[in-house]
Amino acid sequence: LTDRSQNPTHTWPRLYVDSPLGAGTVLTLARDQAHYLVHVLRAKLETPIRLFNGQDGDWAAEIAHISKQSVELRALRLLCPQTAEPDVWLCCAPLKKQHFDDTLTKATELGVSRIIPILTERTQIREVNTARCRLLIKEAAEQAERLTLPQIDEALPLARLLAAWPSDRTLFLCAEAGSACPINEALTNSRLDYKAKHALFVGPEGGFSVAERDAVLKREEAVAVRLGPRILRADTAALAALACWQASCGDWPSTKGPVK
Amino acid sequence: LTDRSQNPTHTWPRLYVDSPLGAGTVLTLARDQAHYLVHVLRAKLETPIRLFNGQDGDWAAEIAHISKQSVELRALRLLCPQTAEPDVWLCCAPLKKQHFDDTLTKATELGVSRIIPILTERTQIREVNTARCRLLIKEAAEQAERLTLPQIDEALPLARLLAAWPSDRTLFLCAEAGSACPINEALTNSRLDYKAKHALFVGPEGGFSVAERDAVLKREEAVAVRLGPRILRADTAALAALACWQASCGDWPSTKGPVK
Repeated sequence: LTDRSQNPTHTWPRLYVDSPLGAGTVLTLARDQAHYLVHVLRAKLETPIRLFNGQDGDWAAEIAHISKQSVELRALRLLCPQTAEPDVWLCCAPLKKQHFDDTLTKATELGVSRIIPILTERTQIREVNTARCRLLIKEAAEQAERLTLPQIDEALPLARLLAAWPSDRTLFLCAEAGSACPINEALTNSRLDYKAKHALFVGPEGGFSVAERDAVLKREEAVAVRLGPRILRADTAALAALACWQASCGDWPSTKGPVK
Repeated sequence: LTDRSQNPTHTWPRLYVDSPLGAGTVLTLARDQAHYLVHVLRAKLETPIRLFNGQDGDWAAEIAHISKQSVELRALRLLCPQTAEPDVWLCCAPLKKQHFDDTLTKATELGVSRIIPILTERTQIREVNTARCRLLIKEAAEQAERLTLPQIDEALPLARLLAAWPSDRTLFLCAEAGSACPINEALTNSRLDYKAKHALFVGPEGGFSVAERDAVLKREEAVAVRLGPRILRADTAALAALACWQASCGDWPSTKGPVK
């Protein structure tokens, strides 16, 4: 969607790296990432690139050396300092492959801070390849100009998540009809500031069971929200809820631009 | 996402038909739809089904006759009368296959009333198979419990769409940074009622060109809106904008449930 011609650094290949960044820092990419940079992103020795590590902001960097085995990079100057990001978790049942991949990618673009796959009564998909998820998330974050990677947890049973639920985190359960509150109304009531801790719960295809819904809503931190009169697929509901959350409680009300 | 055990009619196969519906109406499904009902939705002679046509509400129906060539249906009783729906268009550049398919499906779930594929300077995909789009939309509407099908237009150049733009329809251009207004702020300013006519404009991967953006924003009905500081892919932007629109200006603030 971005008009990359407006800001030349947006056309530079951008990589997440797992090491500290500062002016002059030299780092070596291992085989996989070196391959990705050279063969997928098609970087050459003279290509300017950008690096981020989730902590030190966005850096302009140069390629110091390319060999068949590895690539050496040198961080040059800070393009954008690290800033605070909204704190919102997405707790959602895993879905069939393409649908869950899309959920991970789009949730990353939409600025989710943590994704917790939850196993519920009606969850059909019980196995999540977390390493593969991390890779998808990393690539989405690189392209979305995010300064962090969202965390992804190992899948866990809903009951176990609830038992350890932090009492300072509001939990919005996407539910249908019943006594659920229209989402914007609920979000406006609980809108706080960047330090607000929130989570969005989305069930599997087929929904949460009544017992599960009751168990969630028994918690004091829980609010049932509804996303209109139509039936949404689970992946659509997750993204819609996250977009509404960002627009109301997240960093969308700000007029600060993307990473420069 | 729905808990279909709560409302048994939600488990019934649901079909869009292109003919009037009333108590006792008998209609014959042609080969394609008959095949879909019997072999995809696995309906049998005794299976209760639901029908809608975009005008007469949601109907309980029975299968009167199944043969190899066709299926005869009889509408029995009105389950839910036709109601007014929000009037929001999505004007977006076509995308690569899976991304555009998802956009059509999810926009239908999110209650879009009309989809206009626009050809822009940077639109890579210039051909849209509108018949195939209609089929995807129909199936999404059947499953989303919608009472209508959104209209899909033939793809047309942006300039042609703008030249014929109706002066009573507000146009929200999803843009980045610049002087764009945070989306919820813009929507709240223009929030009217169910009769409000709105449209959301989303560019292709690579965005609208500066000239295109200027041409859109020169119109008095146009407002530039932004969807936060991160870079969203075109399909993510379309769905996020539509979700925010429904939550603010559409039918999500209402507490009326889905079709019964």
